[in-house]
Amino acid sequence: MSEAVGSKEKRFAIGLDFGTNSVRALIVDVEDGTEVGTYVYPYPSGQEGILLDPKDPNLARQNPADYVQGLYESIRGALAEASKHPEFRPERVIGIGVDTTGSTPIPVDKQGQPIAFQEEFRDNLAAQAWLWKDHTSYAEAAEITEKAKKMRTGYLAKCGGTYSSEWYWSKILHCKRTAPKVFRAAYAWVELADWIPAYLAGNLDPTKLVRGICPAGHKAMYHESWGGLPSAKFLASLDPDLVPLRERFAMPAVPADHPAGRLAPEVAERLGLPAGIPIAVGAFDAHTGAVGAGIKPGTLVKIIGTSTCDMMVVPMKEKLPDIPGLCGIVPGSIVPGMYGLEAGQSAVGDIFNWFVRYLTPAEYTTGGDPHTLLSEAAAKLQPGESGLLALDWNNGNRTILVDPLLTGLLVGQTLLTTAPEVYRALIEATAFGALTIIRRFEEYGIQVREVINCGGIAEKNPLVMQIYADVCNRPMKLSRSSQTCALGAAIFGAVVGGAYRKTEQAQKKMTGVKPIVYKPDRKAAKVYAELYQLYQTLHDAFGTQGWKGTLYHVMKDLIAIRNRQRLGK
Amino acid sequence: MSEAVGSKEKRFAIGLDFGTNSVRALIVDVEDGTEVGTYVYPYPSGQEGILLDPKDPNLARQNPADYVQGLYESIRGALAEASKHPEFRPERVIGIGVDTTGSTPIPVDKQGQPIAFQEEFRDNLAAQAWLWKDHTSYAEAAEITEKAKKMRTGYLAKCGGTYSSEWYWSKILHCKRTAPKVFRAAYAWVELADWIPAYLAGNLDPTKLVRGICPAGHKAMYHESWGGLPSAKFLASLDPDLVPLRERFAMPAVPADHPAGRLAPEVAERLGLPAGIPIAVGAFDAHTGAVGAGIKPGTLVKIIGTSTCDMMVVPMKEKLPDIPGLCGIVPGSIVPGMYGLEAGQSAVGDIFNWFVRYLTPAEYTTGGDPHTLLSEAAAKLQPGESGLLALDWNNGNRTILVDPLLTGLLVGQTLLTTAPEVYRALIEATAFGALTIIRRFEEYGIQVREVINCGGIAEKNPLVMQIYADVCNRPMKLSRSSQTCALGAAIFGAVVGGAYRKTEQAQKKMTGVKPIVYKPDRKAAKVYAELYQLYQTLHDAFGTQGWKGTLYHVMKDLIAIRNRQRLGK
Repeated sequence: MSEAVGSKEKRFAIGLDFGTNSVRALIVDVEDGTEVGTYVYPYPSGQEGILLDPKDPNLARQNPADYVQGLYESIRGALAEASKHPEFRPERVIGIGVDTTGSTPIPVDKQGQPIAFQEEFRDNLAAQAWLWKDHTSYAEAAEITEKAKKMRTGYLAKCGGTYSSEWYWSKILHCKRTAPKVFRAAYAWVELADWIPAYLAGNLDPTKLVRGICPAGHKAMYHESWGGLPSAKFLASLDPDLVPLRERFAMPAVPADHPAGRLAPEVAERLGLPAGIPIAVGAFDAHTGAVGAGIKPGTLVKIIGTSTCDMMVVPMKEKLPDIPGLCGIVPGSIVPGMYGLEAGQSAVGDIFNWFVRYLTPAEYTTGGDPHTLLSEAAAKLQPGESGLLALDWNNGNRTILVDPLLTGLLVGQTLLTTAPEVYRALIEATAFGALTIIRRFEEYGIQVREVINCGGIAEKNPLVMQIYADVCNRPMKLSRSSQTCALGAAIFGAVVGGAYRKTEQAQKKMTGVKPIVYKPDRKAAKVYAELYQLYQTLHDAFGTQGWKGTLYHVMKDLIAIRNRQRLGK
Repeated sequence: MSEAVGSKEKRFAIGLDFGTNSVRALIVDVEDGTEVGTYVYPYPSGQEGILLDPKDPNLARQNPADYVQGLYESIRGALAEASKHPEFRPERVIGIGVDTTGSTPIPVDKQGQPIAFQEEFRDNLAAQAWLWKDHTSYAEAAEITEKAKKMRTGYLAKCGGTYSSEWYWSKILHCKRTAPKVFRAAYAWVELADWIPAYLAGNLDPTKLVRGICPAGHKAMYHESWGGLPSAKFLASLDPDLVPLRERFAMPAVPADHPAGRLAPEVAERLGLPAGIPIAVGAFDAHTGAVGAGIKPGTLVKIIGTSTCDMMVVPMKEKLPDIPGLCGIVPGSIVPGMYGLEAGQSAVGDIFNWFVRYLTPAEYTTGGDPHTLLSEAAAKLQPGESGLLALDWNNGNRTILVDPLLTGLLVGQTLLTTAPEVYRALIEATAFGALTIIRRFEEYGIQVREVINCGGIAEKNPLVMQIYADVCNRPMKLSRSSQTCALGAAIFGAVVGGAYRKTEQAQKKMTGVKPIVYKPDRKAAKVYAELYQLYQTLHDAFGTQGWKGTLYHVMKDLIAIRNRQRLGK
């Protein structure tokens, strides 16, 4: 085989993206981001990869064996596809980047192996990976928040003022309290985002494996200004048994443009790749997604999946206020060298999936994809025509209220309310939630000059995007790649592989937006502005302490808007 | 054929019951209420007999031709069944009683024929019968309430302080305003409950046909203390064109133990009955249902169907306060000689039907009756276990708030909330509504010493009855007859036919309760007492002006109760 004269030898990077229900491998050309191979492996355990407890809707765990299996299957699958590309060779892979959900900590033994791999703990839910959306630790989260405030640690300033039940220390503390045997068996707790690069690099020793700034900074209260992890004194005040875990955590945590090691020979062999390929430090899926979507100052990237992450970056030279209710502000967590700001909604696609799974009649679940059928019917409705209004809190509220002890709400039902009407109201509720986040950014001086959306829902559901444009009254753009998280991971693979010196340079070459832009409809935006007032009323009434107001007008206003939209009166 | 020596010749009465979706005829032995023949004729027009407007959930009309057809079909069907009884003969029918839904006024011409029978108006929704649950006239109802208050008429004291959009004058005024051509074509407006006896008696002249106290007193603001119908001055203040309607209304209105006439020969012939049988004055289905269920002082009769009516009677010699929020207090409207008190919920079975029709997944709509399948699954849940709480206002609120501009509300949804959980929450919401009515009666000194339930849902759904017993913390009894409304109508047939001098005497002989009694479960009642507090909070927050309070605790409390009930913690 001969190459064209004068052409530079092509180089490739692999992005490995561990999502909520599956793992995806993506192989891209580092020159321009062209995707040459991809493969998705759905996790086989539990319900769509999630281990549930029917008695406790807060519980969500994952089988760590699914991750290992998925790593091999997905990379091998992507390599098989890439092998059809005339210029691809496994030897031309210059780097591997990794992203995962999080905070998804795994209890591991002294060798760094998940204790779930031990026969004794195989079926123990507490011994599995604690998936990001596990909310069992809400009491511990409240306790951590309270103690951090009381001891004037300042730790909460970077995570919106409230520590979350979705995060590292809450989960570990809840395990100690409710599954002490598992806690005792765990030598350390490692974020999935750190564990995968360590596994690839053959360096699982939990006291040595490289920890990423993204998981540490967003979820483990890691910040340079207080010397890394929270103090031993603070952790001891929660439980003295947390202190050794701190000591087994290798500091400093570093951004994803740093190497975590090189591909270990035994892993390389099983994958069909040369050993020694640089592995980037892991980051969260949303953060690499933002990178893959082309995040830059002024650009809000929304990753819309089962939940959303809403991300912005601010150059470190700018003065940045602490923003109450934001999940995290971490230097270098998205683009190295910039503050990474993370907000989000605890459930978006999950709410639509819940509705389809549990409350959608046969009319929309047979003869086609339920989401498509419901969306087609819902698209025929005018804003406000259903008279319905919902809150998007079926899985709690992550940004602004930072409270998992919230639930869904639907108001406005008549005796003729249909499934597409409810479905649309749920979409609108998530749009109102999205707007609330944008407003919070701007209240604190961070202008949102552009919104780029990515994730399956953004790509597949034009109704959702149009409603977001109308509710937020801004154009909605789409990321060019439909595999943004994996692309972002591959970008870090390209950087650690030496193709670029800086992440921004790689982004400029390897990312972009689609030609289609959803523009706000003026009339719809006007109706939604009215409905958003009512959403805010319900948001504040049910979500905040000390709220004072009235609700008598809510049903009346919804009926009035409904009549105006439906009957034109 | 010979009769046993010494046996008195048996006598029979017919009860004719025009419900929301069908008409039922029932033939009973006047001695003990034994049912010897029955037949149900579902109205053929519209959706389950109701003409709807997909653009306006408030609209509900009926085709008057269905009533006439149903009258013949149902009586002939019941006679066919009764003919198998050895002692039944058409000549032994001594009286016919009639009950219907209401307020269901029909615009009629000078001869008393529905104008919908005219070619020109056949497909005009405004020319049909305006079914009780039509709420299009909410603006007119508000106007009538306001004017009645302003002019200090006192008219509202007997109907809970608020005139309803479901009632006679609201509907007529709305027709004038929105369908003036229909209004002009109508010489008079006759309640279905008055029209049917007049039809049977061959006396449709609207200026002469006998009007019942039950429809007039409950829906047309008729009361002896102000000389019958509202004054011409008052009506003129709403619209001068209402005044002639008042003049065409034969006063006084009388109770159902009075005759409306005798069976006209031409009708008798088509029915296969002798002419001249006495016809009782018509009453509303709920009121004859209460009679057929054995209502007496201290006994609350609940007719649970698409909506509910909750009725009590108080001897006229007792001093009775005006009770705010009650639909009506009318002398003789239920049992002649006693005050009839009517309360109710605008939707009960309709809410369950709505859920089954629009939001129930295939799992529960195939392989069996959806209500049965959902109830079976819902029965396995503990009170509070779902974390859900609903308001029962999908069709507005009839008693206490008297407000059609209210809607349903559901709070507490997670990502795992199931259809049976929502179904149970909706049942519980109607139970909380039922309790709210009981409390209102008792607040005003009318002790509820016994609750007798009737209607299809009470008979067919043990889960509903058990939840009602647990929520209300009182035993729930069932009427012996499953055709209580028709039985009550037959009782009036028996009275006008001369079998009894007084209605109470007929009730003692012809009615009774079933052996089964649903007793409250102490533990469940305790949980429901907590949930009822939250229901009250939502009820007052969304339903009353000037409410002051907080809602922050609502979702938290529901989650706490859910966790306690589900996880035992």
